[in-house]
Amino acid sequence: MPTTRGLERLIFFTDAVVAIAITLLILPLVDAASEPENTAKTAAHFFTEERQQILAFLISFAVIARLWVAHHSLFEHVASYSRRILLLNLAWAFTIVVLPLPTAMSAEFDTEALTIAFYLGTMLLSSLMLTLLALTIRGDASIEESARPIGHNAVQGSAVMTVLFALALVVGVFVPGVAFWALLLLLLAGPIEAVLNRRAARLAHSRDA
Amino acid sequence: MPTTRGLERLIFFTDAVVAIAITLLILPLVDAASEPENTAKTAAHFFTEERQQILAFLISFAVIARLWVAHHSLFEHVASYSRRILLLNLAWAFTIVVLPLPTAMSAEFDTEALTIAFYLGTMLLSSLMLTLLALTIRGDASIEESARPIGHNAVQGSAVMTVLFALALVVGVFVPGVAFWALLLLLLAGPIEAVLNRRAARLAHSRDA
Amino acid sequence: MPTTRGLERLIFFTDAVVAIAITLLILPLVDAASEPENTAKTAAHFFTEERQQILAFLISFAVIARLWVAHHSLFEHVASYSRRILLLNLAWAFTIVVLPLPTAMSAEFDTEALTIAFYLGTMLLSSLMLTLLALTIRGDASIEESARPIGHNAVQGSAVMTVLFALALVVGVFVPGVAFWALLLLLLAGPIEAVLNRRAARLAHSRDA
Amino acid sequence: MPTTRGLERLIFFTDAVVAIAITLLILPLVDAASEPENTAKTAAHFFTEERQQILAFLISFAVIARLWVAHHSLFEHVASYSRRILLLNLAWAFTIVVLPLPTAMSAEFDTEALTIAFYLGTMLLSSLMLTLLALTIRGDASIEESARPIGHNAVQGSAVMTVLFALALVVGVFVPGVAFWALLLLLLAGPIEAVLNRRAARLAHSRDA
Repeated sequence: MPTTRGLERLIFFTDAVVAIAITLLILPLVDAASEPENTAKTAAHFFTEERQQILAFLISFAVIARLWVAHHSLFEHVASYSRRILLLNLAWAFTIVVLPLPTAMSAEFDTEALTIAFYLGTMLLSSLMLTLLALTIRGDASIEESARPIGHNAVQGSAVMTVLFALALVVGVFVPGVAFWALLLLLLAGPIEAVLNRRAARLAHSRDA
Repeated sequence: MPTTRGLERLIFFTDAVVAIAITLLILPLVDAASEPENTAKTAAHFFTEERQQILAFLISFAVIARLWVAHHSLFEHVASYSRRILLLNLAWAFTIVVLPLPTAMSAEFDTEALTIAFYLGTMLLSSLMLTLLALTIRGDASIEESARPIGHNAVQGSAVMTVLFALALVVGVFVPGVAFWALLLLLLAGPIEAVLNRRAARLAHSRDA
Repeated sequence: MPTTRGLERLIFFTDAVVAIAITLLILPLVDAASEPENTAKTAAHFFTEERQQILAFLISFAVIARLWVAHHSLFEHVASYSRRILLLNLAWAFTIVVLPLPTAMSAEFDTEALTIAFYLGTMLLSSLMLTLLALTIRGDASIEESARPIGHNAVQGSAVMTVLFALALVVGVFVPGVAFWALLLLLLAGPIEAVLNRRAARLAHSRDA
Repeated sequence: MPTTRGLERLIFFTDAVVAIAITLLILPLVDAASEPENTAKTAAHFFTEERQQILAFLISFAVIARLWVAHHSLFEHVASYSRRILLLNLAWAFTIVVLPLPTAMSAEFDTEALTIAFYLGTMLLSSLMLTLLALTIRGDASIEESARPIGHNAVQGSAVMTVLFALALVVGVFVPGVAFWALLLLLLAGPIEAVLNRRAARLAHSRDA
């Protein structure tokens, strides 16, 4: 019943939301630079005063870009959609729309457990939605591109990212002084995914043979 | 006379407007978090103080997402467009562009009849435009996808939503203390649409046979 | 040399800019509603105080929508693009990006000749770019869709709109008390275009025969 | 392994980011016009007071438009993508997202070396990413459109622009009183590119023969 255009609209709408959210991240810094009280300030002063805001901007840009790449790579295996795919996509878009709020809060508020939990929790939820999408797509002949099965790698890669975000949330909230640096745990996703991709390539190879 | 690209531009433009409007909903909260006076506040304090703003954000996100899903599902049955379709689409986009204003007002102003009427009235108008679109598309051989007739379900589903928004407006404005909670009436749309979809499926089935 | 995807990117980019500009028009009103000083105000008070802002929002929404419809209808006749088309499109997008500024100025500043000239002048420039686009496309076999020649109607319709904007600018600036109401002259475009379309249809018909 | 839709999403996402960034450039001016203190001001007063902001807006609009045209013309030669293309694109999008910040800073802060370096340095980085993209695409049979080889002209044109931005950065920072006017050096890119295009046309011609 669903059309190709329906699928493309769904992907396009999601992409537009992500593109807007990632571009809006700079706005609080632009606003801070445009405040009339700033006219006497120097650029060096500005960078020093807003260093937490700048850090939060860089983190959120990297995280949204990383989540978008995961979504992009996931939908390379999708040929159609269902109502469930539509709703999971909107839930994922919701987490991306929310992200600028904990970004601003972590930049402006004192670093405390609740702010960290909200920030990293939003990322965790976003990654979880992608994992649910991967699990929903995989093996569903009405959704999955038959010529490009999703393979273990995408599902496991997504699950690994979700586990690492959960780990970062726990470490960031409970280990004193770590806070947002817990996100460095995400750097482990790269090597792990590389391993999984090699395994998946072997699996796909043996499936093709 | 109209081209496929012309139709796709029309849909794309509408999607882009909706994507922007839904993403901008978070901006008033981001601004509130970025206010210099907030630096001493805690996250718990922020969430408490902005609870009405957060509620309004959640309501408007859900409503815009719901309206977009309705638009998405409607245009699965469209193969071309007319000037009337173009203008109704722009009128629908207008209601979506306006929605962030009553959202902000209902969060900041005292709850009063006029604010509720403006908020729920904008949603009602938006739903009404979709119903007019459905009625315009249906049975027009130059617009409707012949292989995918729109069926009773889409028109009736859209009409049901419009009636529920009208009901929510009346209840929200006139029953003291209800206000925006009247939107919970919209939850009835799901079950009702499910019933209508089953009826429509049977209709489509008997039409195919 | 140009690809179809290159043309579609060009149109898409333009559409995205217009969609953003038209959606951002509501932001000054949202900001005004979110100002902390407003918490004691009523909705009726807000609408009264911001009536000029609301009027400016409605005018700019209508004008951008009208210009977009003209662009949309113009590109129904385009099969390819040239560097000149690319640059004229960017110049048109520039006028749309600028439009929110005179909108905000005309809402906030005292009504004076310079504000009116800037507001209506931006619209005139925008319409002029569309006319230049129409003239560039028309009769250029490397650009125009051969199966759908642009015809007199599009060029003349665009020229009529440009002349009406120029007229509105002169009347709005020089006739005391008229100001933005001079834009009502644009309502003449509809009837005039209908006449031109009929003439163009006859021309296209005789060309086909 | 990559799909055409995957490539189109990549390009679309980039275009959406650029469209948003270029449209947001007007926001600081809209905010300045909407400030309540402005109600007594005249338009002439506003233009005089915000002349640096207006100049920064015009410069950034022209630069982003120029960079987008370069990206647009580059991807006319692309038939597929790789992870490296994806990441370089995101890096390029990052420079475009950042650009509104130095724009606002150069408008609000005193003109000093660090602000100029940040502003022109962001542009240089953006142009550098495009050059890296051109070098990555060129000669890679799995990426390049075989029927439309990228040719010397695109790579060299991109390299010329990068060199001119680097030159502008050095002149703007170190020659007193020049500041952002160093960007006028970019006007040399046009003539130089014309020469390169003619050379490339001859090369392509001799390759075809």
